[in-house]
Amino acid sequence: MIEKGVLYGVGVGPGDPELLTLKGARLISQAKLIAYPIDKAGAALARKIAASFIPEGAEELPVPIFKRGTGGADLAAYDAAIAGISARLDAGDDVVFLCAGDPFFYGSFIYVFARLAGRHRVEVVPGVTSLTAAAARLKQPLAARDDTIRVLPGTLDDDRLRAELANAKSAMIIKVGRHFSRIRGVLDELKLAGDAAVIESATMPDERIYRLNEVPEGAKPYFSAILVYSGSPSW
Amino acid sequence: MIEKGVLYGVGVGPGDPELLTLKGARLISQAKLIAYPIDKAGAALARKIAASFIPEGAEELPVPIFKRGTGGADLAAYDAAIAGISARLDAGDDVVFLCAGDPFFYGSFIYVFARLAGRHRVEVVPGVTSLTAAAARLKQPLAARDDTIRVLPGTLDDDRLRAELANAKSAMIIKVGRHFSRIRGVLDELKLAGDAAVIESATMPDERIYRLNEVPEGAKPYFSAILVYSGSPSW
Repeated sequence: MIEKGVLYGVGVGPGDPELLTLKGARLISQAKLIAYPIDKAGAALARKIAASFIPEGAEELPVPIFKRGTGGADLAAYDAAIAGISARLDAGDDVVFLCAGDPFFYGSFIYVFARLAGRHRVEVVPGVTSLTAAAARLKQPLAARDDTIRVLPGTLDDDRLRAELANAKSAMIIKVGRHFSRIRGVLDELKLAGDAAVIESATMPDERIYRLNEVPEGAKPYFSAILVYSGSPSW
Repeated sequence: MIEKGVLYGVGVGPGDPELLTLKGARLISQAKLIAYPIDKAGAALARKIAASFIPEGAEELPVPIFKRGTGGADLAAYDAAIAGISARLDAGDDVVFLCAGDPFFYGSFIYVFARLAGRHRVEVVPGVTSLTAAAARLKQPLAARDDTIRVLPGTLDDDRLRAELANAKSAMIIKVGRHFSRIRGVLDELKLAGDAAVIESATMPDERIYRLNEVPEGAKPYFSAILVYSGSPSW
């Protein structure tokens, strides 16, 4: 009987290739089979971050990201990619699946894991998240002592976002994207805009950092996160 | 005029030395001056994690951790250590300050940063936090889609902890320590104990993982974190 392969979910960090872990870099550089998510435009952020570690001749298995409610064609392509990974694991091959940031922190690896963990051995290698990378680049501590941190998807509706932010000491809003103006409105209303910083493409060559108050009206920094620390620092 | 040195706050990750970032490992292995926190018992967790990367002959600057309210002698030793780092930066030497996990995620580097950032150039290298390391080891995703995450220090009082947990989808309780039994009581009361997992010393040789329900009465896993994901998974 063939020993089945292992699926490695490897976090490749927020963008700077030097923020890969030693373990992640080792697994990628020894891999024969590399899988990673690709979006509709064909972009593969995790692959781009890890590119310099992918061995020449490694076989690549791009997985088209499936978004709920986007219909049958997408789901079929996604299913086929997952089935492809599963077949290779059955055949005894290890597969290294690349994830921007950390695999279990809003990563698309979570869906792959949910599909395959029941039948295959899976190992998860954590990575540096955008949460701490953004704080490092902003030179703004996230939390100390009794501070709580909330991570809030920008997709939350206004009421929910308002309630979460009103009671947060330290918060990071992720997946800001097209919700930027709406989120800004909520922060203005809560008088938190002065405490908020925006970071785009943290640790990448096109990184930009600014206070929320400095963002021109109408600007929409799509690939951004917003950090808010309200009140007096606990340090 | 001498160009002043740079203070690097380097996150060395949760425990497994292979979870250092490439950047962190490079900075440590090239350092002439290595600083790190030591606790009252003389233990230096960050140094232990990074030990294999510290070059022979590097000078070491241990910084005794100062806890608010612990009195004059502690503060004097802490002040002296900070002044020592400052003097070396003034003399043009770079200093690499090691931090378990991530420097800005409840790290003792935050206090060093607060003291020195006004007068010195500081660079922060983010690291893998216990948050994502614990999830990876538990094989339990933290959050997907619209899920929010709360990071809650175990030092919060019962009322606060109850309120935070009652409204959390995904939560991690850190700094559990001597608060274990009390926190367990709150989770029992909220009927969340069945959704909670405990991890001690994540990614370290003495790592232990179990469901909260399996912890014997009276046991106090000191170096532990508790992860709770309540309700149906969003993935």
